[in-house]
Amino acid sequence: MNRLISQQHRIRSLGEEMSSLLLAYQLRGKKVVVIGAGEVAAGRVKACYDADASIIEVYGKDVHPDILALEEDGDRTIEIFEGAVRPENVDLEGVSLAFTAIDDRKLSAEFVQLFRNKNIMCNAADIPELCDFYFGSTINRGPLQVLVSTNGNAPRLARRVRQELEHTVDQLGMEGAFAKVGKLREELRKMTVTGEEGYDPQTVKKRMKWMSHICDKFTFSQMAALTDKDIGKLLALYPQKVSYSDIRPS
Amino acid sequence: MNRLISQQHRIRSLGEEMSSLLLAYQLRGKKVVVIGAGEVAAGRVKACYDADASIIEVYGKDVHPDILALEEDGDRTIEIFEGAVRPENVDLEGVSLAFTAIDDRKLSAEFVQLFRNKNIMCNAADIPELCDFYFGSTINRGPLQVLVSTNGNAPRLARRVRQELEHTVDQLGMEGAFAKVGKLREELRKMTVTGEEGYDPQTVKKRMKWMSHICDKFTFSQMAALTDKDIGKLLALYPQKVSYSDIRPS
Repeated sequence: MNRLISQQHRIRSLGEEMSSLLLAYQLRGKKVVVIGAGEVAAGRVKACYDADASIIEVYGKDVHPDILALEEDGDRTIEIFEGAVRPENVDLEGVSLAFTAIDDRKLSAEFVQLFRNKNIMCNAADIPELCDFYFGSTINRGPLQVLVSTNGNAPRLARRVRQELEHTVDQLGMEGAFAKVGKLREELRKMTVTGEEGYDPQTVKKRMKWMSHICDKFTFSQMAALTDKDIGKLLALYPQKVSYSDIRPS
Repeated sequence: MNRLISQQHRIRSLGEEMSSLLLAYQLRGKKVVVIGAGEVAAGRVKACYDADASIIEVYGKDVHPDILALEEDGDRTIEIFEGAVRPENVDLEGVSLAFTAIDDRKLSAEFVQLFRNKNIMCNAADIPELCDFYFGSTINRGPLQVLVSTNGNAPRLARRVRQELEHTVDQLGMEGAFAKVGKLREELRKMTVTGEEGYDPQTVKKRMKWMSHICDKFTFSQMAALTDKDIGKLLALYPQKVSYSDIRPS
């Protein structure tokens, strides 16, 4: 393993092209540990909180106000262990994901070793060669999430890529489209419910086929512009094929 | 843990809004296990191979030709264990990431339990409630990678989101821009090399500042259109502030 890690480091130093496996990691039901309680740590806590982590344990002193605010307002558990950070005081039992966000690089590396011993995936702030993963720039619009990674190349450009993609997402009204399609699917489900909880496979299949048809047929802007009345008109036509002119005659 | 997992399942069933932590996972120096050797498994192997996994172990029978082709051509190690898949035959020592891609759901769940016992992050094809992560739709353009996740909402729309973002990426010439900026940075590094390997902090800082300036000042299309001659002109102006008209007078 040591050989492989040093190889990785060598390759990074030479600036060769890197590639990542982009993942949508699920934090529900999982426990996260954050070593450090400053501004960077607060960003990690917020990201994990927004991704529905069940338990977030924070170890550090001078706890950032954003962390305290989440601890108070939150409907999920943030546990703060205030004080100087010592490896022997950190409980890694049942932990799925870990972060270090402290200035002491040696201590940070020590924690990473502890995480690795337990096969806990981790990110060490400012020490890329010790990271199992990076964050990149993200766009969040309702259920739609977009990650932009440039694998360490031109971080300044990465931000601009994100801005351009954000512009496309917003200009086309994608968030609204997802909301309306979600609503349409929900109403359709209520209307066609059969058997216990409506999970009759034939009905589900028929519903999915029709929803796919709508998703293919309407532009994002058309979907985003659907009113409750439009949704009613569409449902009245189920399971026929429809087009935008059926609900908005030109 | 069981309580948490069943809670997760309940929330999914109700179709409430989900959120993921989007990550750029690093596979260099890591070992991956893929249970199954069919078409879906081949997709997993390819994704991990492209993301520079060091060792990929594949367990299954009737191995898909794409896996065999990668095994032969590859400069990295793909090990195929051909035959009926049995948990007792799979070695999970040192494994960072695991996949199941088999039709037998019961066997798949059995493997997931083994992975969890060793804290190995996993994805079970077609069994979302057993997945630690999902893939989503991705765009790969040189060092630029984009992940689109809709957290299970309207998968048909997810594909269209990806297509629209792909259009933006390609229309603005982002891949070319990254290539040219990479080239400029490389030439600049050669030109300004100082000390051992050119890592004098002052020089590095000055270079980075100038590169950021260029990245902010030029559009993607302007960057993508830079010729070797243009790059020479830019370098001759270092470390002055420059604008596009300095190299392409209108």
